[in-house]
Amino acid sequence: MVFILLNCKTYDEATGTNAVSIAKACRDVSESSGLEIAVAPQFPDLFRVASAVKVPVFAQHVDGSGAGSYTGSIYVKGIKEAGAVGSLINHSEKRLTLAEIEKSLSVLQENKMRSVICTNNVATTAAAAALFPDYVAIEPPELIGSGIAVSTANPKIISDSVDAVKKINKKTVVLCGAGISKGEDLKAALELGAGGVLLASGIIKSKDPKAALEGLVSLI
Amino acid sequence: MVFILLNCKTYDEATGTNAVSIAKACRDVSESSGLEIAVAPQFPDLFRVASAVKVPVFAQHVDGSGAGSYTGSIYVKGIKEAGAVGSLINHSEKRLTLAEIEKSLSVLQENKMRSVICTNNVATTAAAAALFPDYVAIEPPELIGSGIAVSTANPKIISDSVDAVKKINKKTVVLCGAGISKGEDLKAALELGAGGVLLASGIIKSKDPKAALEGLVSLI
Amino acid sequence: MVFILLNCKTYDEATGTNAVSIAKACRDVSESSGLEIAVAPQFPDLFRVASAVKVPVFAQHVDGSGAGSYTGSIYVKGIKEAGAVGSLINHSEKRLTLAEIEKSLSVLQENKMRSVICTNNVATTAAAAALFPDYVAIEPPELIGSGIAVSTANPKIISDSVDAVKKINKKTVVLCGAGISKGEDLKAALELGAGGVLLASGIIKSKDPKAALEGLVSLI
Amino acid sequence: MVFILLNCKTYDEATGTNAVSIAKACRDVSESSGLEIAVAPQFPDLFRVASAVKVPVFAQHVDGSGAGSYTGSIYVKGIKEAGAVGSLINHSEKRLTLAEIEKSLSVLQENKMRSVICTNNVATTAAAAALFPDYVAIEPPELIGSGIAVSTANPKIISDSVDAVKKINKKTVVLCGAGISKGEDLKAALELGAGGVLLASGIIKSKDPKAALEGLVSLI
Repeated sequence: MVFILLNCKTYDEATGTNAVSIAKACRDVSESSGLEIAVAPQFPDLFRVASAVKVPVFAQHVDGSGAGSYTGSIYVKGIKEAGAVGSLINHSEKRLTLAEIEKSLSVLQENKMRSVICTNNVATTAAAAALFPDYVAIEPPELIGSGIAVSTANPKIISDSVDAVKKINKKTVVLCGAGISKGEDLKAALELGAGGVLLASGIIKSKDPKAALEGLVSLI
Repeated sequence: MVFILLNCKTYDEATGTNAVSIAKACRDVSESSGLEIAVAPQFPDLFRVASAVKVPVFAQHVDGSGAGSYTGSIYVKGIKEAGAVGSLINHSEKRLTLAEIEKSLSVLQENKMRSVICTNNVATTAAAAALFPDYVAIEPPELIGSGIAVSTANPKIISDSVDAVKKINKKTVVLCGAGISKGEDLKAALELGAGGVLLASGIIKSKDPKAALEGLVSLI
Repeated sequence: MVFILLNCKTYDEATGTNAVSIAKACRDVSESSGLEIAVAPQFPDLFRVASAVKVPVFAQHVDGSGAGSYTGSIYVKGIKEAGAVGSLINHSEKRLTLAEIEKSLSVLQENKMRSVICTNNVATTAAAAALFPDYVAIEPPELIGSGIAVSTANPKIISDSVDAVKKINKKTVVLCGAGISKGEDLKAALELGAGGVLLASGIIKSKDPKAALEGLVSLI
Repeated sequence: MVFILLNCKTYDEATGTNAVSIAKACRDVSESSGLEIAVAPQFPDLFRVASAVKVPVFAQHVDGSGAGSYTGSIYVKGIKEAGAVGSLINHSEKRLTLAEIEKSLSVLQENKMRSVICTNNVATTAAAAALFPDYVAIEPPELIGSGIAVSTANPKIISDSVDAVKKINKKTVVLCGAGISKGEDLKAALELGAGGVLLASGIIKSKDPKAALEGLVSLI
């Protein structure tokens, strides 16, 4: 099934009560389209969103460190108890060491949570696939927030990523992100072999996020 | 007024619903003792705790980056809208660059939130005081979680910190932490010039946190 | 005495044998002008420069960690034995935590080496001064490499930094940097109370670095 | 050919002139044994060692950032011009993000230098192999500096790493490290499929490093 993940980052339009509204738009469009649309609010909003809206909730990051003396860390049981069912790992705005990526993935898997490792090019996508996450999300950093869709600007990076992942494992699904917001962006991504997309400003900063999501899925 | 801040770190005993229980113990002992006892839960628990318990809630960390493309960051408005009234900055388990400390402090001040900069020795305490936070919390890293109270093991670091801060500004209050858990620890800290304490495992990992808090304040 | 420090960064024009040429320019203009002009080459060039040219050589960074299992770290004895007499600390391109800044400063002082803590605004300058380094170098990050001299664009940040440092200690000298390259820039900086300047691209990327240095000191 | 790489870390016994002595021991034992023995001194010692001793010299780390405003960074051309022929990447004491590992590897390859990516377990070894470095060096962090050889304590991590790498690419050679110092350690490593070893304290902190190296290669 196509998987769409909407990253709230620290946008004011998706903080606090606004995160709840964004989550409701995800739920509504998911129901009307039959596609899975998940949301990744800020940590302080996880509980509020998961309690209020029936939608898959992801964390934007998780640390591999467990229970204990880890002030300020994102503990997997903390996000799980707040209602998260998965997490982004290694987003370009929250890069981790290779050892940390592997550890964060492990703690998600131990807790039966879904994992999305973000990468920046084909080589790092292959490396991430060697760790067997549920998803690898390839996002060329120079296109993030640019309004230029990766599926238009650099279709080859998507198809090459899909090929590179397939060579290494059959389980991991490739998502793509950076500049995705319109129906043709998602359609192109799927045609290039991606299993879904990672979204942010294109939807969240639009005047009507629900309408933007409806546009996104309109060609599927 | 004496200020006691209980840091939940990522202890299982203070995660999710347990964070709410810990917060209730803080509230109860604060009411019975007349001292201010605040709690610093994990980010995903801020909303849940602040909604459920009438107690000052602090974040364990805050980033200076504002609204925008900061996936995984701790946005000051996110923690504020979740109910936090202040934040730790630069805890020994979440060290920041000097520029980040100053920025995190600035965003708290702009949002009229309380600030606690953590430091590791007298020199860094003086440096932190030069930034004019509400509190500087001196915690010798080697004593954190040790069960040996800083006020017993190294009273001079507290009194020297108090002196160093006074030379630089008259507003900032010195807290001390590391190994504090008993009535005599708090009493000694106050006699050395501290305005309060930062606590964690000594209370949270005790069999009865409420009783432990009652013991802590029993000699004041 | 006026102190001028030329940072080679990782410019090709100041790498390897080019670093030796740059150092010779510093030595020559220092001798002709009577001002102290030091150079901060890359770590692999410290020995080569210090062996070949009679000029004060600084490292661009030093770690506080000592001898031992610190692969890839900059060990104070390593840079000292290579001929360095001091080091930058916390350059805006190599930010450190407050605890690390204090530790790096300590190891320099224990080894009787000179210290320059870089800062980004008046508040962090005051904090750095509370640690008692030999120099604090205030460099507004937005002006670094801009070609716009801080002494013209933001003279107040220099005079305020000088005032802030004086309130905290009488020993630390304020340097300023960012965009400095001409005679009037240095003159203005000294008139605002700075004791010298930190330089980089304005000299190193000029067609004739020696002539550029001569221009810099021409109004003193 | 068996490849032995001796990491000087920041040991006093391998700093400055001592690094030259250590390098000479590597050269002598390499000549008498016919095995390749390379040395990785600290950055300030690269030029001194490479100028004085005919031995392959590696850097302990290299940054992917190129020429420019990267104060304190390890520029690939800087280490190359100082005489290095390769570099460690992502040592457990200098961990990098996945994106940085890939970039550091790229700049080494562009400069025709040899690359050793360090990893901590089988999963991260597979991920590193997906980037196609010359070597992956698996070092369980808990055994580093322990005096307990990985080839005795955890032979399976070596053979599993060799298998994992072979599945992903045929070019990358597996090294192993952590606690290696004796002839039987090296022999066991090679029998488990490793192509060589990464060494440090076991040799450098021995009374007679040359004799220790002779012992290391004595069973090959």
